[in-house]
Amino acid sequence: MNYRMIARYVGMVLKMQAVFMLVPMLFSVFDQEYRVARGFLATTVLCIVAFILLDLVKYDVQKTVYIKDGFVAVAICWIVISFVGAFPYWIGGEIPFFLDALFESTSGFTTTGATILAAVEDMPRGLLFWRSFSQWIGGMGVLVFLLAIVPAISGGERTLSVMKAESPGPAPGKLVPKLRQSSKILYIIYIVLTLLQIIFLLAGGMPAFDSVVNALSTAGTGGFSVRNASVAAYNSAYIEGVFTAFMILFGINFNVFYFLLIKNFSAAYKSEELRAYLGIIAVSVLMITANITGAVYQSLSQSFRHASFSVASIISSTGFAITDYNLWPTFSKSVLLILMFIGACAGSTGCGIKVSRVIMLVREVKRILFRMVHPRSVEVVKLDGKAVDKVVVHAVNAFFVTFMMLFGASFLLVSLDGFDFETTFTAVLAALNNMGLGFGKIGSGGSFSDFSVLSKLVLSFDMLIGRLEIYPILLLISPRTWRKI
Amino acid sequence: MNYRMIARYVGMVLKMQAVFMLVPMLFSVFDQEYRVARGFLATTVLCIVAFILLDLVKYDVQKTVYIKDGFVAVAICWIVISFVGAFPYWIGGEIPFFLDALFESTSGFTTTGATILAAVEDMPRGLLFWRSFSQWIGGMGVLVFLLAIVPAISGGERTLSVMKAESPGPAPGKLVPKLRQSSKILYIIYIVLTLLQIIFLLAGGMPAFDSVVNALSTAGTGGFSVRNASVAAYNSAYIEGVFTAFMILFGINFNVFYFLLIKNFSAAYKSEELRAYLGIIAVSVLMITANITGAVYQSLSQSFRHASFSVASIISSTGFAITDYNLWPTFSKSVLLILMFIGACAGSTGCGIKVSRVIMLVREVKRILFRMVHPRSVEVVKLDGKAVDKVVVHAVNAFFVTFMMLFGASFLLVSLDGFDFETTFTAVLAALNNMGLGFGKIGSGGSFSDFSVLSKLVLSFDMLIGRLEIYPILLLISPRTWRKI
Repeated sequence: MNYRMIARYVGMVLKMQAVFMLVPMLFSVFDQEYRVARGFLATTVLCIVAFILLDLVKYDVQKTVYIKDGFVAVAICWIVISFVGAFPYWIGGEIPFFLDALFESTSGFTTTGATILAAVEDMPRGLLFWRSFSQWIGGMGVLVFLLAIVPAISGGERTLSVMKAESPGPAPGKLVPKLRQSSKILYIIYIVLTLLQIIFLLAGGMPAFDSVVNALSTAGTGGFSVRNASVAAYNSAYIEGVFTAFMILFGINFNVFYFLLIKNFSAAYKSEELRAYLGIIAVSVLMITANITGAVYQSLSQSFRHASFSVASIISSTGFAITDYNLWPTFSKSVLLILMFIGACAGSTGCGIKVSRVIMLVREVKRILFRMVHPRSVEVVKLDGKAVDKVVVHAVNAFFVTFMMLFGASFLLVSLDGFDFETTFTAVLAALNNMGLGFGKIGSGGSFSDFSVLSKLVLSFDMLIGRLEIYPILLLISPRTWRKI
Repeated sequence: MNYRMIARYVGMVLKMQAVFMLVPMLFSVFDQEYRVARGFLATTVLCIVAFILLDLVKYDVQKTVYIKDGFVAVAICWIVISFVGAFPYWIGGEIPFFLDALFESTSGFTTTGATILAAVEDMPRGLLFWRSFSQWIGGMGVLVFLLAIVPAISGGERTLSVMKAESPGPAPGKLVPKLRQSSKILYIIYIVLTLLQIIFLLAGGMPAFDSVVNALSTAGTGGFSVRNASVAAYNSAYIEGVFTAFMILFGINFNVFYFLLIKNFSAAYKSEELRAYLGIIAVSVLMITANITGAVYQSLSQSFRHASFSVASIISSTGFAITDYNLWPTFSKSVLLILMFIGACAGSTGCGIKVSRVIMLVREVKRILFRMVHPRSVEVVKLDGKAVDKVVVHAVNAFFVTFMMLFGASFLLVSLDGFDFETTFTAVLAALNNMGLGFGKIGSGGSFSDFSVLSKLVLSFDMLIGRLEIYPILLLISPRTWRKI
């Protein structure tokens, strides 16, 4: 293991963290929340000191960097960010128990949006800003990481045109210069979309603070809200519509936006993942609308409005709510449950198994059936008209298997708390797919505060697992990674 | 598609069905239940007529038989058996709605044990005998089918020493003579174990009828009972112990018994699947005992008795009950839920994903992690000390993916009935893994009678899917199977 490199990476991440914290710190000062500002200041100082110390570590840039070094570095960086990000909640005493602060912070940086706060409106605005800002940072960080490093390992991304030059190899260090340019494009798209949402929200009469914070949460598909009632608090069909639209947008593969940007419309149109994603949304909204009209809402338009918001919130793994869908018929809840598993497009800030993986899983099953009928056929799994390498297809299968196993193991541990089946099941799902919202006790308006210490640790771990597409965290905790050969 | 061959196979199966039905028919006459006997007689006549007609079909034995022909034939035979087996329930009017009779019959032949009967004690004894006898037939039929044909397709079986000569190929017809001998050994083991259980039950003072019928249900890991309270009705720790032991036994790979029979103890001992199966049982019993002692039962011995019975019943996919484990803490239920997915050993009469598949899934995940750390390693997945072919490992992964997809689709359809999450989830699982029992409404003492026509069809379909290890039924309904090339 290249410890020196990892140390330097952690140092860089802490430097960035210090820079990021200036924003909520200045906001808190401006908002005259001096106690909160002091928390940010203390954390910033801590970050800078740690950075200076870690920057003293000498490391050999010529030394080969293995894929495991890269993965372990990413895992550790994300954990460090979440850990340090918990300090501002804890120092001022707003979240007195450190594990709760850590849960909240991890939930932020992993763009999950699960909260241990029963009433967010009691929190100082500086911290509310920090919660959503951490989701925005998490979403941005993940864009580059997921687009550039993970794909070839877990088959998460096939239409990787923006950065197809950057194939992951034994020396990620050397990729940095190339990556930098591509990342810049993604960041610009990300920032522009966030600004657009702020403008649309302001246009709907939403207060400036709420607009900014909500847009940050939406962009990262996080779902932290500044109101106890989440988006329902604004009580406006227009505002809900803006959220619905942007949640769907942030669940789209950012390559599509890039294609649109360079006016390559046919490439954007040809993305099978995009079409499947929109198709799944459309079908789900129709099914739920049909199911809840009459049963829950009288008017078709109201049903449609609620169905589309919930579908967008769940498939994009955002987790905003405008209604308690716990009260919906079982069928609608089942549709939502399946959407929780599917998740958003690869290469977006959304989480879950990912639409492109689901497409490949379905096609692989079809191919196997076809092979049984025609044993001599050479049919392959295709995506976007191109044959997908067998290795990728198997990696996708293995990803799914790993996902389900982690799900099962976490489910068992969290069930020790004795909550009902629905709560336990969806709590794990909400963490593992970074949705942050489920059924039962953790439905809209609920919180994770009642879970035990063990469950909070397991769920925090699941959030990191889900956000980093499983393998970095698994590698980090696998004893074999650390064994000398 | 080799229609002529399939027709002849169906004919043969109907002939067998006619022979089988003589047993409950004679029993009914003896028991003076003439109305029931008439139902069996009518069905027998129908089977014989159909057999004679189908036997007239000429077919070319020299014609190549493809794997799809074999699979489709098996799927159709199982459907025909279930269909015809429903007549005796329906003709006499004991189950007036044919779909219910079909559900009950399918549940029997697939060794599921899910029932639409709210009170089994109201049924004539001839039909109760038929229910359990159909499970025994299903268990027997599946032994040869699963051991000989399925393995190489879905990776269900690796230690296939009994019949390792019979690899599935393009001409299953030619395998029959070889198969016959191996099957004979399996049948003898199956019959001897069933007789042993009858003796043990009689020794515990159980009435002769109950002993025979219960043993038939146990052998097929079916779980149809003749008492409304299932095994709890006998109120005897000894009898419960006998059930526990035999449920575990019938969940073991029959090759192990074969090894013991030929005194090859080391081969039996070396079976990793067996050790994992017993290990999972031991750990689960311990965890549940610890969880329910104090919370549900006061004494440790009572907790252990209930835990071991339930674990045995569920991991072997039998579905007998001695207690309402719906009332147990969530953790115990979660353990049971995970056992439902795992299921018994390959090559047993039990169902589910199977322990050997789970072992391979876990090892494949480990291998992938290892590969990330050591990209140049050539580590392979092993079972019983031997390397497992990559093709088999991928097939196991694909099997799991297909299983979960079918689970999701069925879950969605059954959720239309609007039952609670727990009931809906475990109803699908109970059908797909041929367990027959779940949580909520379909827990111990519950029945499937309240489900809609659609759900009953979906669940019947799932029982067949689960029993035949997915692919035969999927091939049957796949349009591409029927397309000319």
